Amino acid sequence: MGRILALTGGVGGAKLALGLSQILAPDELLFAVNTGDDFEHLGLHISPDLDSLTYALSQQNNTETGWGRAGESWNFIETLGALGGEAWFRLGDKDLALHTARTQMLRSGATLSQASAAITQSMGIEHTVAPMSDSPVRTIVHSDQGDLAFQHYFVREGCGPKVSGFSFDGIANAELNPLIREWLADCDGVIICPSNPFVSVDPMLHLDGFGEALKSLPVIAVSPIVGGIAIKGPAAKMMHELNMPATALAVADHYQGLIDGFVVDQTDAALVEQFNVPTISTPSVMVTLQDRIDLARTCVSFLASLSSN
Amino acid sequence: MGRILALTGGVGGAKLALGLSQILAPDELLFAVNTGDDFEHLGLHISPDLDSLTYALSQQNNTETGWGRAGESWNFIETLGALGGEAWFRLGDKDLALHTARTQMLRSGATLSQASAAITQSMGIEHTVAPMSDSPVRTIVHSDQGDLAFQHYFVREGCGPKVSGFSFDGIANAELNPLIREWLADCDGVIICPSNPFVSVDPMLHLDGFGEALKSLPVIAVSPIVGGIAIKGPAAKMMHELNMPATALAVADHYQGLIDGFVVDQTDAALVEQFNVPTISTPSVMVTLQDRIDLARTCVSFLASLSSN
Repeated sequence: MGRILALTGGVGGAKLALGLSQILAPDELLFAVNTGDDFEHLGLHISPDLDSLTYALSQQNNTETGWGRAGESWNFIETLGALGGEAWFRLGDKDLALHTARTQMLRSGATLSQASAAITQSMGIEHTVAPMSDSPVRTIVHSDQGDLAFQHYFVREGCGPKVSGFSFDGIANAELNPLIREWLADCDGVIICPSNPFVSVDPMLHLDGFGEALKSLPVIAVSPIVGGIAIKGPAAKMMHELNMPATALAVADHYQGLIDGFVVDQTDAALVEQFNVPTISTPSVMVTLQDRIDLARTCVSFLASLSSN
Repeated sequence: MGRILALTGGVGGAKLALGLSQILAPDELLFAVNTGDDFEHLGLHISPDLDSLTYALSQQNNTETGWGRAGESWNFIETLGALGGEAWFRLGDKDLALHTARTQMLRSGATLSQASAAITQSMGIEHTVAPMSDSPVRTIVHSDQGDLAFQHYFVREGCGPKVSGFSFDGIANAELNPLIREWLADCDGVIICPSNPFVSVDPMLHLDGFGEALKSLPVIAVSPIVGGIAIKGPAAKMMHELNMPATALAVADHYQGLIDGFVVDQTDAALVEQFNVPTISTPSVMVTLQDRIDLARTCVSFLASLSSN
């Protein structure tokens, strides 16, 4: 169906992204990736969402931990902890190499996009992994324990604090990645992967006219909430704390005005008639590679059907 | 015999240093350590000689490689190489943690001495490991391939270039570590460990009146050259290239005016009468911990005998 833009954040979104990459060629699919989770730590520029996608697309993701790189060892972080260093962010030895490579490239004057291109190419990835912006945007979690940098909330505090809202530092001055802007000029549809709406997708939607630009295109979103729980991560907990029902319906409401179609899990098939936009149900809990490919095919077909209306 | 200052550089010197630490209490022995080999790499402050001593004193040195930390893994550097990063300096996963811990402390405003104290204490070392200076000094190797930063000569080029001399960038503005200066005010003798005279010991001797201050104390040196070869490292190769005989005699000549006694290996026992200073021969090739302790005892006794003259 031509050229698709896929918006993705963490590990859940990256699963569908891998499926999409298996059925669409690099000139048919561009990934726009959240960088609001990025942070500076131990002198390194860490981009967790870029990395989750990079590891997923290269099939180097760690299936034991559910995050990070496959075949990982932990000698660095364990030794750092023994030396009294900051060990709350569990950097694997191999994962650390990616952060170091990226940081060195940034220090040498590369943009985040250029660093991402070099890294993904060296890992055999042919699709473009485009950070949403080359400028720093940092998600701040407003909580009952004050304002927290995202990784402090997410990893250091284990999503414990009660969330009251979010803001995105730097968003006003951040420009949409030119790679994404150019792709939008010749783009046939948009898939929002099953990522956290508040901290993975919203930072992108707040960027520099990006949300507005998407409204002129057919857009579908895949619910990260299945049967009232988040498949991965704190989305459902956040929704409770934000006084929303933790349902696929509430996710669709969150995207109201943007999306033209919605995809829910088969578990939520009974809800399909209740949505304000065309909605389909399908198996969306991706365990195998085939699950990823199947959901990707369903999404692309659904998007194509909306486009032809 | 009171309070001793030991000057040490790389792995060879660190062997004797461990022996000394086993027979002298922390208030009887201070280590002054070369930092001319230090460099900035991958955003880290790396102090190879401080680390060699730290690993030796904590008995965490890697006996398989002859350098670095015991029980090491190499996932970081192998992955970095695969990503196209700089992999010529073989940073082990555990070793990397020490560099990261130090670098973080320096970034937080600690001096190199304070960082060294925190690291050695966390590794159970009671003796003070004092960097020669808290200011940066960088050894430059003049060679037939131009001027090379020390680690570029030593590791990247594998000591291949032909050496014509050395200089120590920053030495004019570097102050002797106050810990060493204070120790000198109440110091009974000095042992120069079997380290490379040109790149491990000379940077210290060129510091801010340090060489002069040592001349007022009893000083002995242990030859790093045994039977015409260097036990470890490029000392003998450098001596050839500098048109010196690669002998213990030439090492003693190098230290002329500074040392009051010299220690050679039993291999060179026949030479003992040829030195300009009192010289003893003893087993100095240290394989076991007992070898280290035995040589340490011999050195301390020899130094004491010179002091009482």
